[in-house]
Order: sequence, then structure tokens, then C-alpha cells
Amino acid sequence: MHVLISLIWLTLLTNIQSVPAWYKAQRDAILSTERRQSVGSTLKLTSDEEAVNKMIMAAKQGEIKSAIYDDSNYIPAVHFFQGRKRMEQSKVFKIIQQMPKGAALHLHYGFITSNAWLVKNVMYRPNCYMCVKEKVITLTGFYLTPPVDKDCTWIEISSERAKSTDIETFDQWLYNNLTLTVDNPEVVYPNINVIWRRFLQYFQTVGGLINHAPVLKDAFYESLKEFHEDGVQYLETRIGLMTPYELNGTTHDYTWTVKTFRDVVNEFKQDHQGFSGAKLIIGGRKRYNGSAILQEVKAAMSLVEQFPDVVLGYDLMDQEDVTHPLLYYVSELLYPEAHKSNLPYFFHAGETDWLHIHDNNLIDAILLNTTRIGHGFAIPKHPEVMRLIKERNIPIEVNPISNQVLKLVSDMRNHPAAILISQDFPVCISSDNPAPWEALPLSHDFYMAFMALAASDDDLRFLKQIALNSINFSRMTNKEKASALQLWETKWNVFIKRVLDSHNTFTEV
Amino acid sequence: MHVLISLIWLTLLTNIQSVPAWYKAQRDAILSTERRQSVGSTLKLTSDEEAVNKMIMAAKQGEIKSAIYDDSNYIPAVHFFQGRKRMEQSKVFKIIQQMPKGAALHLHYGFITSNAWLVKNVMYRPNCYMCVKEKVITLTGFYLTPPVDKDCTWIEISSERAKSTDIETFDQWLYNNLTLTVDNPEVVYPNINVIWRRFLQYFQTVGGLINHAPVLKDAFYESLKEFHEDGVQYLETRIGLMTPYELNGTTHDYTWTVKTFRDVVNEFKQDHQGFSGAKLIIGGRKRYNGSAILQEVKAAMSLVEQFPDVVLGYDLMDQEDVTHPLLYYVSELLYPEAHKSNLPYFFHAGETDWLHIHDNNLIDAILLNTTRIGHGFAIPKHPEVMRLIKERNIPIEVNPISNQVLKLVSDMRNHPAAILISQDFPVCISSDNPAPWEALPLSHDFYMAFMALAASDDDLRFLKQIALNSINFSRMTNKEKASALQLWETKWNVFIKRVLDSHNTFTEV
Repeated sequence: MHVLISLIWLTLLTNIQSVPAWYKAQRDAILSTERRQSVGSTLKLTSDEEAVNKMIMAAKQGEIKSAIYDDSNYIPAVHFFQGRKRMEQSKVFKIIQQMPKGAALHLHYGFITSNAWLVKNVMYRPNCYMCVKEKVITLTGFYLTPPVDKDCTWIEISSERAKSTDIETFDQWLYNNLTLTVDNPEVVYPNINVIWRRFLQYFQTVGGLINHAPVLKDAFYESLKEFHEDGVQYLETRIGLMTPYELNGTTHDYTWTVKTFRDVVNEFKQDHQGFSGAKLIIGGRKRYNGSAILQEVKAAMSLVEQFPDVVLGYDLMDQEDVTHPLLYYVSELLYPEAHKSNLPYFFHAGETDWLHIHDNNLIDAILLNTTRIGHGFAIPKHPEVMRLIKERNIPIEVNPISNQVLKLVSDMRNHPAAILISQDFPVCISSDNPAPWEALPLSHDFYMAFMALAASDDDLRFLKQIALNSINFSRMTNKEKASALQLWETKWNVFIKRVLDSHNTFTEV
Repeated sequence: MHVLISLIWLTLLTNIQSVPAWYKAQRDAILSTERRQSVGSTLKLTSDEEAVNKMIMAAKQGEIKSAIYDDSNYIPAVHFFQGRKRMEQSKVFKIIQQMPKGAALHLHYGFITSNAWLVKNVMYRPNCYMCVKEKVITLTGFYLTPPVDKDCTWIEISSERAKSTDIETFDQWLYNNLTLTVDNPEVVYPNINVIWRRFLQYFQTVGGLINHAPVLKDAFYESLKEFHEDGVQYLETRIGLMTPYELNGTTHDYTWTVKTFRDVVNEFKQDHQGFSGAKLIIGGRKRYNGSAILQEVKAAMSLVEQFPDVVLGYDLMDQEDVTHPLLYYVSELLYPEAHKSNLPYFFHAGETDWLHIHDNNLIDAILLNTTRIGHGFAIPKHPEVMRLIKERNIPIEVNPISNQVLKLVSDMRNHPAAILISQDFPVCISSDNPAPWEALPLSHDFYMAFMALAASDDDLRFLKQIALNSINFSRMTNKEKASALQLWETKWNVFIKRVLDSHNTFTEV
């Protein structure tokens, strides 16, 4: 077998002597026509970048080579829950982790702050309660006097911890109540509906924590910190119209939430020079009725008007297959236009395996003038949608691990974004909801994109391009964008130098 | 939940009142632009066909509807081994089974004759031996005196059966040695290499049977019979350069094999009026060295010349990821052209999940002027290959179940042929190797294509078109093709009438 492997790689990596020149010329012409169309292919690398490129490509090809005879060895071919630890040992991953990744444009607030912080910080605060039913935490919240609930028992977490003989075990139990990670996802989550139910339950569990006004503030800050540490300099996150509560039960309105977010972002930027900022997209749910959505549209219009530097627009979210299509809300979504106003949309669309059912949301997203498309998993099956996206250059927010965990695709090499990438569609990579599945803000998703959505020979230029795309496709003002690009370039040059230095140090030793 | 389901289907199936006319017009324009590009969309149905269409679409939508809240209920979303029995209960399947399906163009002789026939017919013949090692049949063959083998024990099957107290259990054990079907394929076949090893072992096990000259003759006949009974009127099968043996150990040459095949086909056609015939494509293996392939190319050229009505050309087969790329054999494959001769090729290409490794075989297949492309699973990730295939109208032989069983894709809705179908690429549906995984000649694969590769609203026109495509993309002579199309049309009209009649009878009762 090993002789055969060597032979195959030989025939791949060397010129086969007996190929006639005319044949080789024709073949190279087709190959280069394809390569020229791929994301990142037009970038020119400096000599330092070329050196880093050689390193990362040697590591990438090594991982591929070691999986040719057993693709269950290939990290993107297996479930993230089963491959994550191996991924974190990968040299490719370690380089990607250091890389300045630009912006994360598809996120959901409430699903982006690490479970570790929720457990080790928020759940250590006084007055923090959990409601437990059959050893499962179903609700949480901060109370002076906890409510009485017939379905579950409210317990103060810190008192319970104090009673515990083994604090680490107690905290691990809290953590296990949050994380979706299991060893055998194919058994625990047999279909898309089961995993979505568990996924939405995550928000039900943590919602009471992050809706608490003081926590909300800290969670905003913590999120920015975690993203910043993972090489993300800017983010745009979807957020529901939240009305955070104080310990005495009073609540704040949306405006307070937006202002608080703005203040926290400014504070974070003052504390961290290399950060460009963060903005909000208001998000409603596709199981609401039309009049509820109309109220939200109006609220979003008002927030965009009041906070044009913070609130970007509106989106509708939910498990696409089983909730209303965008078409159901067309008259509500056309309200701003009908009133000579404007509300930018950032619609989720085509986050499904079905064809010509709710994936037709892609058509409505385009007709409703969406600024970007969230997921767009079904795009390659829609030729006219593809044409329109190219023509109008509508960015697509691809979230590889989310699509795998939420059961749209198992082997990441089959992710349809590979097709979009091969045709230089305007794609950026994001992480959707990294917290419930213990992903880093962008590193794990960038690894998947590089190793499985891009071709085996797509290289550093791909990584550089998706970072650049993320900044270019953001909704920062032109001035902010120019400054973010400049900042990114500085970071990129430091990154290239650092990788080269560490390599030189390593080879010298 | 059920209220929600109803709501969703309502919003799908009815016009939403509040959608403005101008919006609806724009939306319909995009939808119809997409629909017009889909395989079969230009066909016009007669009123009888429309009636059948309503029936099959009601059944199709019923299956989709019942799976919206649990897609592990959706047969194409689960592994064929786990969904087959449910599939056979499906009304859609039952209609497809009756349908005249035209031609099967991608098959491998040795993998197309049902295991039931091998066990209940061939393994009942005298002098039929199996070599058993640790209760597994590793080899078979017909012998006057069985060979002595240090690795396994040769036993005459009929003597062993005679000793058995329970013949059905014995025959079931034989059967289990052949079939790849298991209840838990994800455990038994954890990766592509494991399933391929088991798959190739199938041929090792049955090879000794079907290489026996009298069996070969009968197996040819039996294959035609099984395909005919499944509504297939013509087939083209790959076949190795076989040298069948007689009981006394003497062997025949390739010419004998081709002549025998031709005679059997003629005999079968005399016995069965509604059958158009069968032809051969010689197939070598991509683990041979160049000089072996050159010998085969020459042999194939000679067979095409001697038997232009039977032998169509040449192909190279194997597990694509781990064997030589076509490029390795370019000079051998250019031999006919270099000698002012012609050998039509029918290359397997792009039967892989990897990208820009052996899937580049697609480029070589095109440069070597392939008549059709086998599988082409990787085509949508190759934009220039897509363009050239469209331009040259190169038919693609899609084998859905094979790709699932051999672990390229798990949920059939993610099969990339869906993209080709949405853009009216010249596709036909075949079954590759139905016997080892207990598929019918075409019915199961047609079901998968209709329910998962085609869109939820692709209808009878899709089925009709893929049947027509299969005849049009065959390599029958023009005259044979015209007569096959006429025959198919007669069968199609009978089918339409029969489905209508059975429905009327059913509703009257």
C-alpha cells in the first residue's frame, strides 16, 4: 500500500515525463483558467509571504497525504465534536490561530460568549439562580427572591457550589448543561430537528444570564475580548430586541441596550488599540406573526435612525425548514420602502438541504435587496440566484462548523461553499454561534474553510483574501473600513514575520 | 408543532394575499428562469401524463411533508441500507418501478447480477467450490479437483449444503458472504477505504463463479433479464478483459467473451420483444502499470474493430483517490490517436470528495475526448470543466446510491448532481454496481434521483427526461437509437395508462 501512496504523490507532484508538450499546454490552460477563478487567486505574495505559504502548504499537504488511505483521519471529514482536539494539534491550525482574520460578520449575540466565562464568571456572581428539573438546568436568572416554579426548582448557584465537596465537578456539571459537545453526536442528535431543539434550549438556558443588565454589559465586553484574542478585529452580530432586567425586576428598553453596546465597544477600543469596533443587526424570529414582525421592523428603523453608527439593519432568523418563509412577511418587510424610508436587510437564506421549499428565501432575500446573505448553503442549486449574486456582488456569510453541527452536511468537503469559492463568489467565513459548540471565534471555522471548502492547492492567498473580504463586506463606513484595512495590514505583516521567526528559531534549534 | 407545520405548508401552497403584484411578478420571473433550466422542464405533458403527474407529485410531497419535522424520516437522507425497505413501500417508488427507464449506461459486469441468483442458481451447480477461511468465503470456482490452498479450505458447496440440516440458513449464510448490506453501515464501514476494500472483495468472491464459461453465459442472460424486468431496455456495461475458464481448466480469449456476449444478447432479444440490446465498454484498472494499459488499449482497439456493433470503447476504473490519475497513462491513452486510429473513451472521473487531487481526472477525461463521464461527482467544483461539458454536451453518468454506499456523500440531498440537474446538464442515472448492495437495476437509483437530486417540485417531466437522456446518450447506432426511442415511447404510453387504470380501479373500490 505504501508504495502505491508514494507513487500517487509522485505522479501528482512531479511532471510525468511522457506527457506530450501539446497535451501539457492544453491541460495547464484549463487548470489555470480554473485557478484564476478561485477566491484569492489574483493576490500576489511578497517573498516573506511566499515563505510562510510554503510552510502552511507543506503542513496542509501533509494532513491530506496522511488521510488519503483513511479519510476518517481527515479532520474536516469527521464531525467537529470528534475532530476538534486533533484540529488544535494541527500545524495548519496553529498558524491560522495566529493570523489576523479581519471581521466576523455572521454571529448571534447570546451564542458567542464562551461557556467557560459564563460558568467561571457569571455563575459565580451573587443572586445567580438556576432552575433545575431532573438534574438539567432549564432556566437561569438573577433574583433577590427567586420565583416559584412548578416545573423546576430554583437554586442559588453559589450556595449550591458552597455546599459541594468538589467544586470542579460542580462547575463541570454546570458547563455540561451548556455545551452541545458530545462524543457521539450521530447518536445524540439523529436529525436536524433534534439538534435545533437542543441548540435553542441553549439560549433558553443562558438567556436569563445574559439578559441581566450588568451581565449583558460584561458579556459584550467579554465577547469582544474573546474575538480580539482570536485575531478578529471587528464584528457585526445579530441581536434580538432585548429588554435587559435589573435585580429589582425593572427592565430597560432597546435603546438602553444599543447605547450600552456602543459604550462597551468604545471602552473596549480604548483598552485595546488593535480593535476596529463592532456593530449590531437587529434580528427577529420567523415563528412570529406578521404584526409582531412589523413592530420589529419599525423598531429597527427607529434604531438605525437613532444610532446610525451602531445599528445596521434587520434580519429574520430561525430553523429555516420549519418556520415561515420570507415571503410570508413580504408586506411587513416592504414597509420601509413603502414609506419612502430604508432599512438595510441581512437575511438568512438557503440554510437548508431541501430544494425549492424554504430555500426559495434566497430569491426573496435578493428581491428585498439584502445587503448580505446569511449561510446561502443552497445557493449552488439555484442558477438564477447565482447569476444575480455575481451581478450584484452580494456577499455570502459562510459558517462551516455551524452547518455541520446543525446537520446540513457531514463531510465538510461536501460543503457547497466549495463551489462558490471555486468561482470567486464574494464569500466571507464566520462562526454563527461558536459558544454552544465550543469553537473559537473564527479559528476553527477558518481551518475548515482552508482545508475543505478551498481546494487542496488553495494556499495562503485564500486565507488572506477571506480576511480582506470580511473587512470589505462589512458595513463599516468608508472611513472606518479604510482604517480597519490599514490596521489589518499592520497585523498581517507582524503575523508573517512572527511565523517566519518562529520557523527560523525552530529550524536553528 | 402541528399547527406550525400546517401554517408552513399553507404559506408554501397558497398565494399569500398580501404580496404586492409587482413583487410577485419579479419573484415569478426568477422562479421561472430557474425552472426553465432544470432537466425535463421543457417537456410538455399530455393530459394523461398530467393526471399521472398529479398522482406522483402528491405522493412525493406527502413524503417530504412527513419528513419536515424529522428528516431521518426522509429516505434519501438516510443510508440506503437503512432506508431500502421503507423505500420499497413508497408509492413514488412503486410508480417508478413500473416506469420504462430507458438505458443503464454505467455498470460493471460482475456487479450487476443479483446475489439471489448467484446463491440459488450458480451455487447449486455441481463442481462449484468455495474456499473458506474463518467462516468467510474468500474465493469460489468450478473444479474437477479443487486446488490445495494453505490460506483457506476448498469445499464443494452442494455437498456442504446436502450435509446441512437447514438449507435456508445455509443459503442465507452464502448470501451474507456476498451482500454488503448491514444494519449499521456507519460502524462497519467507517471510511471510504474500508468500504472499497469490502467492495473489491465482493468481486474476488464472485469472480471465480462468473469467470466460469458456462456461468458467464448464463450470467449475461440473467443480467439482461433482471434489467429488463426492472424496466430497462438497453444497457452498456464496463467489463474487464476476461478469459473465462472451462471445468477442465482451459481458458477462452477476449474474443470468445465478446462473441458469447453478442450471442446471448441476440438470444435474449429473440426471447423478449421489448428489449433493445446491450453493448460493452472494456475496462482496465488504474493500479496497472503503463505497459499493461498499453496492451489493453491495443486489445480494446482490436475488439472495437472486430466487433463494432458490440464493443464501444475503453475506460479505466478503480478507487480514484488511491490509484494512478489518468495523467499517468496519457501516452498510452494517446496511442490510438498517435497511430491515426480511434478508440472511444468512457472515463470515470471526479468520483472523489477531494478537490484538485485526482478529481483533475475530469480535465484529462475531457482532453482525451471522453464520450461520456462516469460519476463526475466533483464536476460542480470545476468551473472550466463545467463550461467545457456544457459546450461539448458530454453526458454524465450519475450513480446516486453507489456514491452514497461508497461514502462520497451521506444525505443524498447533498449529492452534487442536484446542481447539474438545476442547470440542465446532460445527465443520466445509472446504478454502477447494484448487486453487492442489493439495489434493483435502476429503480432504487431513479427514486433517489427523483426525490433528492431533483428539486421538490421537479415532476414526471424530470423522470421522462432522464429516461430519454439515457437512450439519447447511449452509443447505439442512429438506427438502433431511433428504434429504441420508438419502443420506449410505446412502453411509456402503456405505463401511463396502467398507472391511471390502477388508480381508477383503486378509487372506484
